[in-house]
Amino acid sequence: MPHYRLAFLGFGNVGRALARLLERKRVSMKVHYDVSVSVTGIATRRHGYAVDPGGLDVQKALGLWELGESIAPLSIFDVKDSLAVLHHSGADVLFETSPVNYDSGQPAIDHCRTALQIGMHVITANKGAVVHGYRELAALAATKGKRFLFEATVLGGTPVFSVFREGLPAATLTAFRGVINSTTNIILSQMEAGKTFDEAVKYCQGIGVAETDPSNDVDGWDAAVKVAALVTVLMDTPFTPHQVRRTGIRGITPAMIQEARAQGRRWKLIASAQKTGEAVHATVEPQMVDKESRFYALQGGSSGLEFSTDVLGELAIIESDREGLPPGPEPTAYALLADFLNAVRR
Amino acid sequence: MPHYRLAFLGFGNVGRALARLLERKRVSMKVHYDVSVSVTGIATRRHGYAVDPGGLDVQKALGLWELGESIAPLSIFDVKDSLAVLHHSGADVLFETSPVNYDSGQPAIDHCRTALQIGMHVITANKGAVVHGYRELAALAATKGKRFLFEATVLGGTPVFSVFREGLPAATLTAFRGVINSTTNIILSQMEAGKTFDEAVKYCQGIGVAETDPSNDVDGWDAAVKVAALVTVLMDTPFTPHQVRRTGIRGITPAMIQEARAQGRRWKLIASAQKTGEAVHATVEPQMVDKESRFYALQGGSSGLEFSTDVLGELAIIESDREGLPPGPEPTAYALLADFLNAVRR
Repeated sequence: MPHYRLAFLGFGNVGRALARLLERKRVSMKVHYDVSVSVTGIATRRHGYAVDPGGLDVQKALGLWELGESIAPLSIFDVKDSLAVLHHSGADVLFETSPVNYDSGQPAIDHCRTALQIGMHVITANKGAVVHGYRELAALAATKGKRFLFEATVLGGTPVFSVFREGLPAATLTAFRGVINSTTNIILSQMEAGKTFDEAVKYCQGIGVAETDPSNDVDGWDAAVKVAALVTVLMDTPFTPHQVRRTGIRGITPAMIQEARAQGRRWKLIASAQKTGEAVHATVEPQMVDKESRFYALQGGSSGLEFSTDVLGELAIIESDREGLPPGPEPTAYALLADFLNAVRR
Repeated sequence: MPHYRLAFLGFGNVGRALARLLERKRVSMKVHYDVSVSVTGIATRRHGYAVDPGGLDVQKALGLWELGESIAPLSIFDVKDSLAVLHHSGADVLFETSPVNYDSGQPAIDHCRTALQIGMHVITANKGAVVHGYRELAALAATKGKRFLFEATVLGGTPVFSVFREGLPAATLTAFRGVINSTTNIILSQMEAGKTFDEAVKYCQGIGVAETDPSNDVDGWDAAVKVAALVTVLMDTPFTPHQVRRTGIRGITPAMIQEARAQGRRWKLIASAQKTGEAVHATVEPQMVDKESRFYALQGGSSGLEFSTDVLGELAIIESDREGLPPGPEPTAYALLADFLNAVRR
């Protein structure tokens, strides 16, 4: 049975959810894919670094993290940074979940490049690495006979990139449109329920889906980065978030929300792109949708995209949040697992 | 460059749309997948049989078909049935699009079995072959190192089976729900627009989406067969259409439609299944949905499914019809092409 050694650069909510998911799916991976795994390297931002090519005790690492302690005592080498973890882990696969840098994609791109160079598959949840490093990293992966996969970067665990790669071969994507930022969608849903913008932002901070500075979400940056990633990969056109015409939701007032409601409509932060010839035009902006729109029923932490191709009618892929629960890291962690299984099976 | 010889058993709307699509995608297949194809066998129901291992002139075959003439003059062998076409075509891949038999899956199962036994990949649009032959044919394909694929059987060209195979590895499907029969959805949409049931059926017959005897659609048989295929494959539980609790749409009156409308609701023929332990419970029945349902906006020839798994929120995959155009065979033909590329690449 093939055994794969895994390195985690980043051990935040998503990385730790993946560590727990790998444990939960251990038997299923063995039975259905004949695959077993061990974690041989972990790099955290505030809890240190640990490496053991023979396999780290992941339960202990999770426990130390919860206790606010360093994971360094688990390490058999004295490692002091992420690249050292990569080099000493002996890993076959890197899971890159370090914090996103919208402007440069660093240091995630360095992590991914190094891992590919020393012969690892690279699986990332990092949008910055895709937007700023896709062509280089995809080409490097091809040269090395490895995979560079990033399903987790857009729509959490919902398959998008793999649907085009595997489900829609030889299809040409001409346009897409959707709701791809959960935080703003929760804010708008909360405002429909009567909250002010500030109250809705506070609500999102309270359930852990908005940061102290909510600008990346409410000003449309997160959506713009995702649009850039989708355009770069699925339309095969390098594209940066700065090329996206971007309007956030700060201008949406409770009065506008109620006015839309009175017309049977709703405000949504809609991300879209169209390719005409070689030119791509992309926007992120609030739009009113009516009840005949598939986005009307997309409330709270739900998100979804519709795609125009040359071979089908409009294809929509939508993930709804689970019955009022705030969006958690589990679906994103699942996307990393799915990429891993696609990288190693066959 | 790998070259693949293709046999078509069935040359109806879907088979002929595939022949045209292969021509349209010739360059794209060469550039992106390094694949070229020729058609070496065609079996039709009313226009005869043709075989040429060196490659048939597909344009001529399409032309003869349009003229109502036999394609037999194109053949270099005197072949008189579908199995003879398979044996003499020298094909690497079978496209099986013969008419569906809901009760036995024949003769499609025999076609698929024979093709796999002589070493072809088998790609089918035939729901009967999946419902009645899945386990046998999938096992035979595995033994032969070939693929048995059938994306075209449910939701036309929209990827469903490949999403679970490639996009959702190690996920457990616990339930699904959706609108999976276009004809009944068009009938219900037409009734909302004021037609009676009989007028709506006539409309569907006029645009070519309902047969002279519309029973298979309006009594829910087509939906039940698709449910059985989804349960059999995605829930790994053999299931027949007769096990689906089935109610068609003949009981839906214009008064019921208007009453729903007055409440801001719509009638939809909803197909669903839930797996609890090893037991699967499946139904096809008209249900009223309100505007918060994702199926509310699914009008006319649109169709879609939502899936409950152990790893994501509700995942919905929806295909909308193109701006009022009646559903044509092109998306289904595309699903056959996608399966083909998935079978031969790598």
